[in-house]
Amino acid sequence: MNRVSLHFEILNSGAAGRRGTLTLPHGQVETPAFMPVGTAASVKALPQHFLEELDARIILGNTYHLYLRPGHELIRRMGGLHRFMSWPRALLTDSGGFQVFSLNELRKVTEEGVRFRSHLDGSSHFFSPEHSMDVQIALGSDIAMAFDECLEYPADRERARKSLDLTMRWAARSKAHFDAHKHEAPWVDELEQTPNLFGIVQGGMFADLRRESAERLVEMDFPGYAIGGLSVGEPRELTREIIADTLPLLPADKPRYVMGVGYPDEIVEYAKMGVDMMDCVLPTRAARHGLLFTSEGRLNIKNRRFAEDQGPLDPECSCPVCQRYSRAYLRHLMAAQEPLAAVLNTLHNLAFYLMTMRRVREELAGSVPSI
Amino acid sequence: MNRVSLHFEILNSGAAGRRGTLTLPHGQVETPAFMPVGTAASVKALPQHFLEELDARIILGNTYHLYLRPGHELIRRMGGLHRFMSWPRALLTDSGGFQVFSLNELRKVTEEGVRFRSHLDGSSHFFSPEHSMDVQIALGSDIAMAFDECLEYPADRERARKSLDLTMRWAARSKAHFDAHKHEAPWVDELEQTPNLFGIVQGGMFADLRRESAERLVEMDFPGYAIGGLSVGEPRELTREIIADTLPLLPADKPRYVMGVGYPDEIVEYAKMGVDMMDCVLPTRAARHGLLFTSEGRLNIKNRRFAEDQGPLDPECSCPVCQRYSRAYLRHLMAAQEPLAAVLNTLHNLAFYLMTMRRVREELAGSVPSI
Ligand SMILES: [Zn+2]
Ligand SMILES: [Zn+2]
Repeated sequence: MNRVSLHFEILNSGAAGRRGTLTLPHGQVETPAFMPVGTAASVKALPQHFLEELDARIILGNTYHLYLRPGHELIRRMGGLHRFMSWPRALLTDSGGFQVFSLNELRKVTEEGVRFRSHLDGSSHFFSPEHSMDVQIALGSDIAMAFDECLEYPADRERARKSLDLTMRWAARSKAHFDAHKHEAPWVDELEQTPNLFGIVQGGMFADLRRESAERLVEMDFPGYAIGGLSVGEPRELTREIIADTLPLLPADKPRYVMGVGYPDEIVEYAKMGVDMMDCVLPTRAARHGLLFTSEGRLNIKNRRFAEDQGPLDPECSCPVCQRYSRAYLRHLMAAQEPLAAVLNTLHNLAFYLMTMRRVREELAGSVPSI
Repeated sequence: MNRVSLHFEILNSGAAGRRGTLTLPHGQVETPAFMPVGTAASVKALPQHFLEELDARIILGNTYHLYLRPGHELIRRMGGLHRFMSWPRALLTDSGGFQVFSLNELRKVTEEGVRFRSHLDGSSHFFSPEHSMDVQIALGSDIAMAFDECLEYPADRERARKSLDLTMRWAARSKAHFDAHKHEAPWVDELEQTPNLFGIVQGGMFADLRRESAERLVEMDFPGYAIGGLSVGEPRELTREIIADTLPLLPADKPRYVMGVGYPDEIVEYAKMGVDMMDCVLPTRAARHGLLFTSEGRLNIKNRRFAEDQGPLDPECSCPVCQRYSRAYLRHLMAAQEPLAAVLNTLHNLAFYLMTMRRVREELAGSVPSI
């Protein structure tokens, strides 16, 4: 296993962000990148070739959901998540921590890990850093995430301090177990590469704790770093501040990933601050509810004012939906609860997000004027 | 309006069925043809370009559903159903009769028409032959259907006799109103053609009433004829018998359409008896429940035995689903209630139906040996 499993090349860098290429076992990702969320081995409602046509280079899978159904051991036997879902490009998996905490009111946290109940059938399960690594290695993602405690918001300093310490001990355990077992991922022999593990900076909304978290993680030496625990209900200005304070503490030559953000203007803002990777359920989840993002702003396609609007959803969008269908038709599909509504709405929203990031990259490359 | 709006050319004809080309205002249909059902201006879960890629040349819209939502006048203002749903190929609409009768237990039938309640909100509505024609003309289908009473099964001779008489009077009223107003369809000026109206043979399960119905309809001189009132619960042998008895009573040079059938082996059987057109919700509805049709027979993809089946759904199918995804993945999508399940299952089932009809046509052309 001598080949490098992650290579990050920065092509442009400056005060207005940076542009790069992240090379992973399953292909190249141009950064800054937005990663569509494919929770249960599917970006909801979209056939995989639509994602390829949108030029999505990396998507995210949810460890918690895949562990529960269909189960990571089944996916391992099927050759890993890439083969199981027929997605040959890069995959990132979260640690399962976020769902364990957000979907389980009766969870029990100990030094060892978290006991929780399945949101599907109430059955009891236990996740530890080691178990999260085992699951992610079985799935065979290109990038796995350290298992962390997801701090509630608001949380006082003492609570944040204790949580941070636990998360740092879990990060060390995650890394030790991952390094010892990453060669067990399903495609390691075939590609002669291994999965990669990113650390996650926590520390609540306290700048000094965030600093300490970043420093302790950097000492552990991960190939990339995430900023977690944001978009949990805090004001947007605070999100921005934490990101701005934390980014300079992370190695400039490693990819930097802000988890779970955001609206189109937020992902542009954070990309221009130097963030390389982002993910969010917003474009896909909002699409299923008829909330669509366009160059003219957000709109709710269910609104009666679109009932006879023969224009395209977004006149500036070149996606297959805007090229073919009218707002009136999209509105009808929602009103009639047609399953096609989710397909077309999701396709457009993701096209819009990916186009937004492409435009930021072009701007960073100097090929188009600033947005 | 001198151009012919329907041209039916028979290319091969014999004891084992006939092959032809039906030319409509919105393109050519190779017959025998299976027509996917697009109830509410959408073949459920499928983007229109998938249907084009499957080479579907004609699809069916449901007058009852479109009348209720979004409303035929709205669709007329949007340029008609073709433009509203961005489907440039041929469309057939039913008369609304079937849904008025099957979705309304409290319907009230008079000589004038049917009063019924919307299944959506319970509101009261009235359909007459004239109103059904007005709605279908507003939608602008290439082929509209006469408004008929849908006889329940079983029905005794007296009931069938009375229903037949009413349906024949309604057929005459349908035709008179249609001929007087067909030039009002949204695309008439643009294409310099008009929609076409087909008559529907009824008569329950009584051979002599079917014969009388056919004769009376032929006297009215429609450009095509349907056999209705089948697949209502009668044994399959009886369906076959009625079709076999009725076909010779219809003009050999006009298209013959059997409504609402059937399973793959049935559509093959009827095509080989000389039926030119068929439609059925079965492939699309079954798909959403995980019932899939393959060259190896039917299968329920939810079955546990497919959980780790890495093979394609149908090894002999060339559709995009069978080319890319495994049975294990399709089974997972159903188990996880992922919206992608409906998309992929529908795509395969329709591909299978359309491929089945294509194969019958090739056989009738003598280019492949008999199935
Ligand atoms: Zn678009
Ligand atoms: Zn197939």
